[in-house]
Amino acid sequence: MPLETLASVVGASHIITDPDVLAGRSVDHTGRYRGRASALVRPGDAEQVAQVLRICRDARLNVTVQGGRTSLVAGTVPEHDDVLLSTERLNTIGDVDSVERRVEAGAGATLAAVQHAASSAGLVFGVDLAARDTATVGGMASTNAGGLRTVRYGNMGEQVIGLQVALPDGTLMRRHSLVRSDNTGYDLPALFVGAEGTLGVITALDLRLHPSPSHRVTAVCGFADLEALIEAGRTFRDVDGIAALELIDGRAAALTGEHLGVGAPVEGDWLLLIELAADHDQTERLADLLDGARLCGEPAVGVDTAAQQRLWRVRESLAEVLGVYGPPLKFDVSLPLSAIAGFVRDAVALIGDQVDDALPLLFGHIGEGNLHLNVLRVPLDREKALYGPMMDLIARCGGNVSSEHGVGTRKRPYLEMSRETGDIAAMRAVKAALDPTGYLNAAVLFD
Amino acid sequence: MPLETLASVVGASHIITDPDVLAGRSVDHTGRYRGRASALVRPGDAEQVAQVLRICRDARLNVTVQGGRTSLVAGTVPEHDDVLLSTERLNTIGDVDSVERRVEAGAGATLAAVQHAASSAGLVFGVDLAARDTATVGGMASTNAGGLRTVRYGNMGEQVIGLQVALPDGTLMRRHSLVRSDNTGYDLPALFVGAEGTLGVITALDLRLHPSPSHRVTAVCGFADLEALIEAGRTFRDVDGIAALELIDGRAAALTGEHLGVGAPVEGDWLLLIELAADHDQTERLADLLDGARLCGEPAVGVDTAAQQRLWRVRESLAEVLGVYGPPLKFDVSLPLSAIAGFVRDAVALIGDQVDDALPLLFGHIGEGNLHLNVLRVPLDREKALYGPMMDLIARCGGNVSSEHGVGTRKRPYLEMSRETGDIAAMRAVKAALDPTGYLNAAVLFD
Repeated sequence: MPLETLASVVGASHIITDPDVLAGRSVDHTGRYRGRASALVRPGDAEQVAQVLRICRDARLNVTVQGGRTSLVAGTVPEHDDVLLSTERLNTIGDVDSVERRVEAGAGATLAAVQHAASSAGLVFGVDLAARDTATVGGMASTNAGGLRTVRYGNMGEQVIGLQVALPDGTLMRRHSLVRSDNTGYDLPALFVGAEGTLGVITALDLRLHPSPSHRVTAVCGFADLEALIEAGRTFRDVDGIAALELIDGRAAALTGEHLGVGAPVEGDWLLLIELAADHDQTERLADLLDGARLCGEPAVGVDTAAQQRLWRVRESLAEVLGVYGPPLKFDVSLPLSAIAGFVRDAVALIGDQVDDALPLLFGHIGEGNLHLNVLRVPLDREKALYGPMMDLIARCGGNVSSEHGVGTRKRPYLEMSRETGDIAAMRAVKAALDPTGYLNAAVLFD
Repeated sequence: MPLETLASVVGASHIITDPDVLAGRSVDHTGRYRGRASALVRPGDAEQVAQVLRICRDARLNVTVQGGRTSLVAGTVPEHDDVLLSTERLNTIGDVDSVERRVEAGAGATLAAVQHAASSAGLVFGVDLAARDTATVGGMASTNAGGLRTVRYGNMGEQVIGLQVALPDGTLMRRHSLVRSDNTGYDLPALFVGAEGTLGVITALDLRLHPSPSHRVTAVCGFADLEALIEAGRTFRDVDGIAALELIDGRAAALTGEHLGVGAPVEGDWLLLIELAADHDQTERLADLLDGARLCGEPAVGVDTAAQQRLWRVRESLAEVLGVYGPPLKFDVSLPLSAIAGFVRDAVALIGDQVDDALPLLFGHIGEGNLHLNVLRVPLDREKALYGPMMDLIARCGGNVSSEHGVGTRKRPYLEMSRETGDIAAMRAVKAALDPTGYLNAAVLFD
């Protein structure tokens, strides 16, 4: 281990070899995926990141990059005594350019910090998700994170207009566009976005910001069956001003309501949270839209911020509440809308066949056909029996095995289910071009 | 020349060696860029494209790909006795999936044909530009074309959700997503989009479609100075329902109006075409918005289709009318909004210094800070004296040397002005990984 060389670059206090720290850093959030790391290195700027990479490459050490470590597919678990490279010190956020609506952020800045910078300038950042206080924008770009606002603003990739990247050969590259409209050469930012750290370490980002809508209205509506909800989702995702469109399993909402001591916001086996936001009042339009849908019972509508926050709490607390049952087995999948009801029926049957007593609960971003299927009470030794067949089912339904969480270590064996041979070969060629020895984030994406 | 081998793949009638045809195919639309081709090959399907590539690579022949040949940066001019590979026969358009709002199109399908397929299904394709009857969706994806609707729907890249590509090694890859939400591996479509055919030949595309707005209103407004127009553009680009935001030089509008025999639609040194489109009436909102802008005189408003078409004609006929003066020298540039007025002032001064009698005329997509500066009456022997200094000026103003036309052959020497060394090195590494001998579209992008 070239610890001294690394220490001369980042400072001795930023090389950590304490076994407890390393063990805590070598496991995913479920505690199910465990690896082993030889050191944690915390570079203080992009040049240091590049130097750390060069030193590790030359010493034939694998490097695993860590941001907020909120990956849901074990994307930051080191497999082979890796050096852990943390972006946590790269957390500077520049001044917001409110005319061009952009801000430069270090990869280690949290989503919440970027959101705060944007809102302080009267603007809004286009991505929001539950792990906002921990997830870093570098990690979110590396995984092309989606979330609660995708139906309006797109995924993380659609917010990235420039990048600084430390490449596997230890050089730095900067794609710095002051303006978004730019057709000068390959769209390298789009290549690094979603590459899960396998092609380089994102050290800084130019992020697009959006005007903040002055009017907002939120509703939670109940549906007697999933088909009726999907039909409503199909209509609502197209309306002007759509700002959120979240499917919530009625049973999950009931559990959450119980946990929060507030009860479910509305009746219904399936709930839909819909939000409109625009520069003029949307209350009447929302009422008109809901009039046309096959709801069961009256929707709960929030016209002021406090009421809206109450409605959102049911959705936002889902992950936490489900976690009370132990880490759920998570499937993040996107499907054609027309295939969703059939998939859910078959998936529930599959789960029942494989694991007695398992409890499948769904939520997701119905505008994108993106479902989060969480299966509670799956013993560790039954996971494998469920995982492969579920991936098969997703592929058979015309879906993608990863919608917004990425491939990570978890779904590595299933890449071929969504990607054909020529595609994977092209991906591998790009990987080999930038990282010929394959030392960077070696555990993710490719088998 | 392995003409017989090529003929055995595509059929003898699809190998053309007639010198007149080849000469016509080896020149850009201005007649200023001229190259030389040894044959024109017209494969009939993706497999044939792949085979043609393999044969040419093995025979050490350069290949230049041609779609509609509407490149404004000499992007399809062969430099070295190339084989011209035309995508014109790959023009099938599949059935529109109106639930998932997507359609599969062959690379050689024209934009107009895709637009027609979309509108027949009650949907709209997100990109529109003047060359719609000629430009092919394959070429438009290869150059990440923008156009008249970018302010609403983004560029071509934002419409592409899947691709089939014949790679330089003669293999085919297919990224086929039935749903847009997809984080399964590298975003290869985003890499091929905008690569100007240097990484492979796009043979088919899965294109995203959008709901068709039921209400539309259009206005052309006059401004006494450019600053006032930019200020209005800054406000309007953020409003909900914005569907177009086009800057038109008052002198250019006057020339066009004269040419069309209709006169300029409104008074003003600078004109702005603004369009709102949504699922509810926008007429009042537009009136409110225009009330708040510093217009000179009354705007011309079009509430019905016929009136809207009349307003659009001034914008749509610009290129044709300017062409009457001979091919203009074109600069396609994007700039921060705050830099535009200064850039225009300096650019006009630069043109005056370098070329007596030259007439600079501007139009562009002000929402993206994208200007098309057309300089009329520039003698061929003065072009060079103007081009480099203009690229310098763009870079000094914080702009991009290509906003939506690409780099092509024309701007190849200026790539370093918008891209730093590490960035170009990374681009070259990707190119070398996929096309190690550099035979595909060798004339474009890299110097």
